Amino acid sequence: MILHLKANVSEAELERLSQKYKAIHFKLYGTDILVTPSKTKVIEEKDQDYIGQSWVMESDIQLANKNYLPEIRKIKISDQISIGGDSKNTLMITGPCSIESESQIEESCSLLNHLNVKVLRAGCFKPRTSPYTFQGMGLEGLKLLRKVGDKYGLKIISEVKDASHVTDVLSYVDIVQIGAKAMYDQGILKACSKSTKPILIKRGFGSTLQEFVQAAEFVLSGGNPNVMLCERGIRTFETKTRFTLDLCGVAYLKEYTNLPIILDPSHAMGYSYGVADLTRACMAMGVDGLLIETHPTPKEALSDASQQLNHQEFTDLYHSLSSIAQSIGRKLV
Amino acid sequence: MILHLKANVSEAELERLSQKYKAIHFKLYGTDILVTPSKTKVIEEKDQDYIGQSWVMESDIQLANKNYLPEIRKIKISDQISIGGDSKNTLMITGPCSIESESQIEESCSLLNHLNVKVLRAGCFKPRTSPYTFQGMGLEGLKLLRKVGDKYGLKIISEVKDASHVTDVLSYVDIVQIGAKAMYDQGILKACSKSTKPILIKRGFGSTLQEFVQAAEFVLSGGNPNVMLCERGIRTFETKTRFTLDLCGVAYLKEYTNLPIILDPSHAMGYSYGVADLTRACMAMGVDGLLIETHPTPKEALSDASQQLNHQEFTDLYHSLSSIAQSIGRKLV
Amino acid sequence: MILHLKANVSEAELERLSQKYKAIHFKLYGTDILVTPSKTKVIEEKDQDYIGQSWVMESDIQLANKNYLPEIRKIKISDQISIGGDSKNTLMITGPCSIESESQIEESCSLLNHLNVKVLRAGCFKPRTSPYTFQGMGLEGLKLLRKVGDKYGLKIISEVKDASHVTDVLSYVDIVQIGAKAMYDQGILKACSKSTKPILIKRGFGSTLQEFVQAAEFVLSGGNPNVMLCERGIRTFETKTRFTLDLCGVAYLKEYTNLPIILDPSHAMGYSYGVADLTRACMAMGVDGLLIETHPTPKEALSDASQQLNHQEFTDLYHSLSSIAQSIGRKLV
Amino acid sequence: MILHLKANVSEAELERLSQKYKAIHFKLYGTDILVTPSKTKVIEEKDQDYIGQSWVMESDIQLANKNYLPEIRKIKISDQISIGGDSKNTLMITGPCSIESESQIEESCSLLNHLNVKVLRAGCFKPRTSPYTFQGMGLEGLKLLRKVGDKYGLKIISEVKDASHVTDVLSYVDIVQIGAKAMYDQGILKACSKSTKPILIKRGFGSTLQEFVQAAEFVLSGGNPNVMLCERGIRTFETKTRFTLDLCGVAYLKEYTNLPIILDPSHAMGYSYGVADLTRACMAMGVDGLLIETHPTPKEALSDASQQLNHQEFTDLYHSLSSIAQSIGRKLV
Repeated sequence: MILHLKANVSEAELERLSQKYKAIHFKLYGTDILVTPSKTKVIEEKDQDYIGQSWVMESDIQLANKNYLPEIRKIKISDQISIGGDSKNTLMITGPCSIESESQIEESCSLLNHLNVKVLRAGCFKPRTSPYTFQGMGLEGLKLLRKVGDKYGLKIISEVKDASHVTDVLSYVDIVQIGAKAMYDQGILKACSKSTKPILIKRGFGSTLQEFVQAAEFVLSGGNPNVMLCERGIRTFETKTRFTLDLCGVAYLKEYTNLPIILDPSHAMGYSYGVADLTRACMAMGVDGLLIETHPTPKEALSDASQQLNHQEFTDLYHSLSSIAQSIGRKLV
Repeated sequence: MILHLKANVSEAELERLSQKYKAIHFKLYGTDILVTPSKTKVIEEKDQDYIGQSWVMESDIQLANKNYLPEIRKIKISDQISIGGDSKNTLMITGPCSIESESQIEESCSLLNHLNVKVLRAGCFKPRTSPYTFQGMGLEGLKLLRKVGDKYGLKIISEVKDASHVTDVLSYVDIVQIGAKAMYDQGILKACSKSTKPILIKRGFGSTLQEFVQAAEFVLSGGNPNVMLCERGIRTFETKTRFTLDLCGVAYLKEYTNLPIILDPSHAMGYSYGVADLTRACMAMGVDGLLIETHPTPKEALSDASQQLNHQEFTDLYHSLSSIAQSIGRKLV
Repeated sequence: MILHLKANVSEAELERLSQKYKAIHFKLYGTDILVTPSKTKVIEEKDQDYIGQSWVMESDIQLANKNYLPEIRKIKISDQISIGGDSKNTLMITGPCSIESESQIEESCSLLNHLNVKVLRAGCFKPRTSPYTFQGMGLEGLKLLRKVGDKYGLKIISEVKDASHVTDVLSYVDIVQIGAKAMYDQGILKACSKSTKPILIKRGFGSTLQEFVQAAEFVLSGGNPNVMLCERGIRTFETKTRFTLDLCGVAYLKEYTNLPIILDPSHAMGYSYGVADLTRACMAMGVDGLLIETHPTPKEALSDASQQLNHQEFTDLYHSLSSIAQSIGRKLV
Repeated sequence: MILHLKANVSEAELERLSQKYKAIHFKLYGTDILVTPSKTKVIEEKDQDYIGQSWVMESDIQLANKNYLPEIRKIKISDQISIGGDSKNTLMITGPCSIESESQIEESCSLLNHLNVKVLRAGCFKPRTSPYTFQGMGLEGLKLLRKVGDKYGLKIISEVKDASHVTDVLSYVDIVQIGAKAMYDQGILKACSKSTKPILIKRGFGSTLQEFVQAAEFVLSGGNPNVMLCERGIRTFETKTRFTLDLCGVAYLKEYTNLPIILDPSHAMGYSYGVADLTRACMAMGVDGLLIETHPTPKEALSDASQQLNHQEFTDLYHSLSSIAQSIGRKLV
């Protein structure tokens, strides 16, 4: 159950109710909110006096549930740009898999500026599966990313891969990306829940939709309402492509949750040849954002070389998206 | 290897070469064609004289390979409509999961006529997983489907579920649908390879892309060049939706094969609420056809009740597709 | 619901009840049995008079359900050997993937005779995924298999791959194997349901346990009570091995169904190096049979070369099984 | 490549070689070891002088590869017990999913003492997928676990779920368990690589065998040679059971890697009814350890209630294992 408490409930009562109903407490926009396990369906009559509004929930998809908030949550990306709510915006995010050098990231920034794309992505802490490959530039990369972002007036998003550097990432970026391999990482989720920065959670490639949304519940129930879900492909028996982009799952998320959805066809596909078609399909699904990997010279990339678009390919793709956006009543920003 | 023989090679030589190279022989548009296992990479010098043109292949995706025929195969659906080739057409196919009665299928025909959709689908032999549920109207349904198709000037497509009734289906329909559960059925594949009617092969939900295209090779190497592939969702760990539509796989098929691609988002999703968004995504992928389940009164349907669109939902969806088609330079027919 | 009718219900009443309750009718050991869809939970009072015993079922796992028959069905393999029931027998079945020649199959028979193994397996109609590879010896192979089987006093099992040759297979073999790719083939299932020969159904590699058992229901509800289930690996994201043997699923089947279970670790593994360990694990699971591929010279095999054990490897493995069987109170036959 | 350097290579040369070949350096038993990416296949001639022995590797399964060390690594569990090497030991580990109270864990210790089982498992930091369920006793639980372990002379193993508490876990337990959801967590892996305590890595349920072993490479290449792999079920399309235990994968690991293997059938199955059969199957596979969840009163367990065995069930199971162990030449310790 989600319980919105009445104003002026004392700290002591709050504490008592939390304990009694095994609830998590947080405060949002001045309201004290308790969330109990979803199997709790009733509040004792004598406790009803403290409660303004309440919602009984079927599963632990609670704060993210359309039955709680029926509209997609509005998330402010910059002073000019929001997604969700009544915005009808689809946000383009692009940049390289990894930041590799100042000149490389400057080239990426030029592409974004040229096309008027406002959010730059680049990884600094790379969750590689092998210890013997490039592990990312780490904190140094993060500082560099912040520097060029500021220089070009871009918002930046970068990935946190484990709890040991979550504080660094939180302090340098505008949007925190929780990587697919870190989706269950409660050290990260808890740290992000104490921030108000937008958090983009990537679906683990072995994670169910239920688990995916429940990862968001960790952040939401800590008091940060600014959570986006990013579908990036799940692992299936098919190995001709890197992963399998789950658009059926996206249809489910759109129907039942109130979280903005960002799609990452680059990681799903794993090969640049399919990215343009898939991106257009994602656009036509009617989602809140697109995350596309681009690199000035993909063949020389230190990670994910095969799937990144070069700048010309991205430019062509980008120009093909506006009319699809218009067809479905959305705007690419 | 694929070998196009020169004209006037004798029957005896043809037989000798087939045996020697363990090749399948068929004749198409006057040319004798041999297809050897793909691991065969060379033809002995003394046999070269019989061979006009030859292609060495990397895997048993041979006749369906872009390295053999670089353009999507053109398939004639009616006197007015073709798909593939240089047509830029995306064919709409719709109708109920199962034909249930004459009045039901008449209502479906009215919908198609109203929207000027030209191909009607309806199942007669239903490959249900339980013996205790509705198994379809069988041959009686097939005859009824033919009757109303002719009455309304519609082409009809219906499914064959096993080899015991493939002859019946072949003789009544315009396009044969080989169902997902029958994709490996060589009794069906061989019978279809001896026809010239268009054959739509649905991907088995547990089948790799390699196996999927190889199923088409059974038909192509029997001499029927009119094969379409239909992606309809694969089985994954995610169970909130019925299957997972594999658009990454579609990108692979578009890149490497010369077969027209039809998408069936209805079976993938399993729930009507997601079908419209997914259909628009499929349209934006740039494919050759769409297969959408509709029913006059979905709740009363004897099979697949949850995923069929009612006629109003389909009409709304249908009208939203043209501008997406136009955005990517295609035409919905 | 499963309904055992009282004796002497007239044909007309039988027909009326079948129609009214949409039930399948068959007669077994003198009793008329009706099986309705599982969602039917009640029989009208006025029809109760015809019914001797009845079982309400939760799902369409009905005749195979332990709630209907609590003991594993006893299936007679030969005059000397049965499995299931109170037999505590684990049946060994071995032989090559495909019959390739008389000398090859004679060598296999020698192995079986030497070890006193009583059931020989060999494929004649091979459901290959490519048309360009060895497709099996077909009917000629079937006749040869029968001949050597009789010569050596062995029972034989061979696979049917589609409905076009099911009659041939039924007439030559002692046990019919319905292949994994044919599990849903109702043409096959129906033909087998009219026989009384033991039917071994292999689980489709993309099939759920529910669908697997429901395939058995097609045979059982046609009147053939002699059905065995064979787990042979499912398709997962892991590709270092050919398939993933699902022993958790076997635990489920043992708990909830009354069908004997045969395990095929050879196809699951796909590589001979793991077969011995896996076979011992299967033995320790406490199942009714083991199906192991062996070949006189595996490297020269025309199909499944990598996974077949040579005769020495099988002999060593075979000798290691008895003490495990004994540990769990079973006997290897 | 793995390079064993000769004795007395200077720090400066070590540093130069590491940088030049992008290698990781660690020292083990007095030898300086460098591990380069596996795509590096040659060392320049002028650098050969520094190298004592070298191994070229096919993939980034390097230190864990049988081609490097052909024997299963020996890991000391206590003064009396080792696994791997030439020990032929299979280690039993048992205890509750979560430590819940002192009385509960005391009961578990009694069971272990009674059966002479030497390693106690219990979770303190639970990586639950929902924030609204029991999250474990945390550090308090860890201290309690240490206390009772010492009191009863038991070794203890407990799970670390993210990098924020890895130091605590490392300091209190005898064996660190890296949970399935944390398998990729480099914050944890790096911390564990700096310890010499045995590390048990559970396979992520969406992780390939390649990634699984590469997780071990993070620990091994940090200098901790004491790594065990734990297979606990992967996520597949089958949902009648919680996960699918991948014994084919275990056969692969036994064939190609030098790491001891522990099997956890409890989590794979998810239901207590299948655990005994599966545990016997795991025993017969010939592995180095078994991890079984037990609880004094499973129905009251705060996590994983359905899959834990009660003490009588475990006692019966335990007594059935010795003769299977003996059949395959192993000893249960």
